[in-house]
Amino acid sequence: MGKIALAIHGGAGTILRSQMTEELEREYRNGLEAALKAGWAVLEQGGPSIEAVEAAVVSLEDFPLFNAGRGSVFTSEGKNEMDAALMDGLTLKAGAVAFVRNVRNPIRLAREVMERTGHVLLAGEGANQFAAEVHAEMAPDEYFFTEHRWLQLQDAIADGRVQLDHVLEDAETRRHRDAGNIPNSEFRIPHSKGTVGAVACDKNGSLAAATSTGGMTNKKFGRIGDTPLIGAGTYADDLCAVSCTGHGEYFMLGVSAYDVSARMRYKGLSLEDAARETIERLSEISGEGGLIAVDTHGNVTLPFNSEGMYRGFVQNGIQPVVKIFQP
Amino acid sequence: MGKIALAIHGGAGTILRSQMTEELEREYRNGLEAALKAGWAVLEQGGPSIEAVEAAVVSLEDFPLFNAGRGSVFTSEGKNEMDAALMDGLTLKAGAVAFVRNVRNPIRLAREVMERTGHVLLAGEGANQFAAEVHAEMAPDEYFFTEHRWLQLQDAIADGRVQLDHVLEDAETRRHRDAGNIPNSEFRIPHSKGTVGAVACDKNGSLAAATSTGGMTNKKFGRIGDTPLIGAGTYADDLCAVSCTGHGEYFMLGVSAYDVSARMRYKGLSLEDAARETIERLSEISGEGGLIAVDTHGNVTLPFNSEGMYRGFVQNGIQPVVKIFQP
Repeated sequence: MGKIALAIHGGAGTILRSQMTEELEREYRNGLEAALKAGWAVLEQGGPSIEAVEAAVVSLEDFPLFNAGRGSVFTSEGKNEMDAALMDGLTLKAGAVAFVRNVRNPIRLAREVMERTGHVLLAGEGANQFAAEVHAEMAPDEYFFTEHRWLQLQDAIADGRVQLDHVLEDAETRRHRDAGNIPNSEFRIPHSKGTVGAVACDKNGSLAAATSTGGMTNKKFGRIGDTPLIGAGTYADDLCAVSCTGHGEYFMLGVSAYDVSARMRYKGLSLEDAARETIERLSEISGEGGLIAVDTHGNVTLPFNSEGMYRGFVQNGIQPVVKIFQP
Repeated sequence: MGKIALAIHGGAGTILRSQMTEELEREYRNGLEAALKAGWAVLEQGGPSIEAVEAAVVSLEDFPLFNAGRGSVFTSEGKNEMDAALMDGLTLKAGAVAFVRNVRNPIRLAREVMERTGHVLLAGEGANQFAAEVHAEMAPDEYFFTEHRWLQLQDAIADGRVQLDHVLEDAETRRHRDAGNIPNSEFRIPHSKGTVGAVACDKNGSLAAATSTGGMTNKKFGRIGDTPLIGAGTYADDLCAVSCTGHGEYFMLGVSAYDVSARMRYKGLSLEDAARETIERLSEISGEGGLIAVDTHGNVTLPFNSEGMYRGFVQNGIQPVVKIFQP
């Protein structure tokens, strides 16, 4: 049995220790630990990596503090529109959905796209019709709008106790804005950085990656970010599995998830060096965020250039690790 | 002044000499030559590569025999839904749209996304709202449905005189289907291979790529292919500019457009070797199609593994070349 491994993230951005209460931090840690447990149970029983990442992301989607599934943010019309993608490095197959509504677990619908269609990405009305045809588990608007959590967090924000990564603009964007460096942005809308994801290596050394997001607050113009795009926010092959989180447009322009694999395959770099270089490249093009990645030996790396990233990992023989802040 | 260069394509697939009439071939060649002329005029006057690829693709969109802009195929509801993307290698900025309706030149709307938003990809209703806000030039349904061309081509197909790459399934898919190798395809719908694209190197050695498609005949479930996805069907940086055409899902899984750049940067390959390897990789994963690519020295390459690809290129000092069949 090879070295099995699992890593997860719950978003990256401006997450400062000084603005986090003990209680809130404990809740975030609980959410991350539950997701690690869900994915690890699959790997420990000898299950495939694709099942492990799906289980971990379902757990993160169900946890209301992360911006994916339950807890997703709201469009300008007060609706949830969610994106998700997964990729199986063993078969090099992938499935993704964009703009799905009232689907309880978008990552499960992405799996259905992978398993039951010859396609990779279904979006909008069509994706919702597909959800109906495959009898995806649906949930009412109230399920996604968790009032208690919402009010709790509004209070926290009002008190300056917490900055939510998926509500406020990131430090990098703010710096650019302050410096007058954001040109051509007359139609700029808030970008999402609230994302969850998982990557895993199973006992056979096969890899998989999954990513899910609840989109952006007050979304307009049908913006699609990196999450559902294979190569940008999500990628897995026979070298590595990668899930990204951050300012999506820069991960799209940097083709960041696939870039980790390309640096390993074409430059002969280790997982850690490849992922570090990908984040360095992201910084060069002014992007902010992070990624989680795993290789076929069960090595794990979780680099980011933002102030914090909700993250965790487990490897066999090692106790689960959960972190939020730098380093 | 460096060596300026321009390459274009009008789709790849099952294009057999035996099934093409002289008259139809002349029309295709006219369409390709007009697009080369439009893009070349920009480069010759010292204009930037991004303007040249936009001009060439506008010309291809306006030409009714290619599946992009005018001449786009029809969804199951008898509508046109079009995708387009472009990327400026000089600024590493990109813009893309998916599922736009009644927009006369989707590539121009993609340019607006690049210039006027902080985003890369807008899709569906939102993208159509954006088109309205920026006053994109619209056209009625009748403009896209060119009855004369349609009937002419239906006749040609009925007579067995021509197989349209965007109407019939490709040979590779057919082989797989015949061999029973297409699993999990209960929701399979026709995939688009009708695509147009352009890549250019301007006098400063700056590069750009643009791709546009009219989607797929009888489209359902909101499938998005590789065309509007940066890294999959379209990519440009300071090494190369790439536009792909073919069975989109495989270009998405292979992250093919960016893969050419990665092989150049990380393996130190020439443009030609990198592009050839990318197409070899596409064949390995059972994908069919081709790509056009240009580097900063004005080198051009147009590899494909399908039976034909509508294509052409111009370099300074060389007469325009237009080809349809192998080799």
